[in-house]
Amino acid sequence: MNAKVFVTLKKGVLDPQGKAVQHSLGSLGYGNVQDVRLGKYVEIKLDETDKAKVDSQLKEMCEKLLANTVIEDYHYVIE
Amino acid sequence: MNAKVFVTLKKGVLDPQGKAVQHSLGSLGYGNVQDVRLGKYVEIKLDETDKAKVDSQLKEMCEKLLANTVIEDYHYVIE
Repeated sequence: MNAKVFVTLKKGVLDPQGKAVQHSLGSLGYGNVQDVRLGKYVEIKLDETDKAKVDSQLKEMCEKLLANTVIEDYHYVIE
Repeated sequence: MNAKVFVTLKKGVLDPQGKAVQHSLGSLGYGNVQDVRLGKYVEIKLDETDKAKVDSQLKEMCEKLLANTVIEDYHYVIE
């Protein structure tokens, strides 16, 4: 089974990298860019067919390793 | 309008960061992880209501700044 995990900074947490990208886009002429937030995108291939098991495993993986839950949110989709 | 941009390494391009995550997941007991690929996830807020214009603008942004098209693929969704 394949899973896609998205890790983003929580609302209210400063995102200097996103601001840098926003500024660069502004310099390139895209003045209509109001906000940019950067996150991580993780594609995971699992040797497992039980969707419920994959779901609980992914939750654990995010909590333990993929996301820093103090400052980051995560969500995932299983395919 | 909001857009979500996904930037991933092309197939065949080595992803040492992904391998490191895969190895870490293995150490944590998730031996059924077959592959991990890391990418970027960019949320962009645009002050623009014309979807066609947003689409062409996002394509330009990806080609010029957000992705290195030599080694990376990108796709985006507009909401």
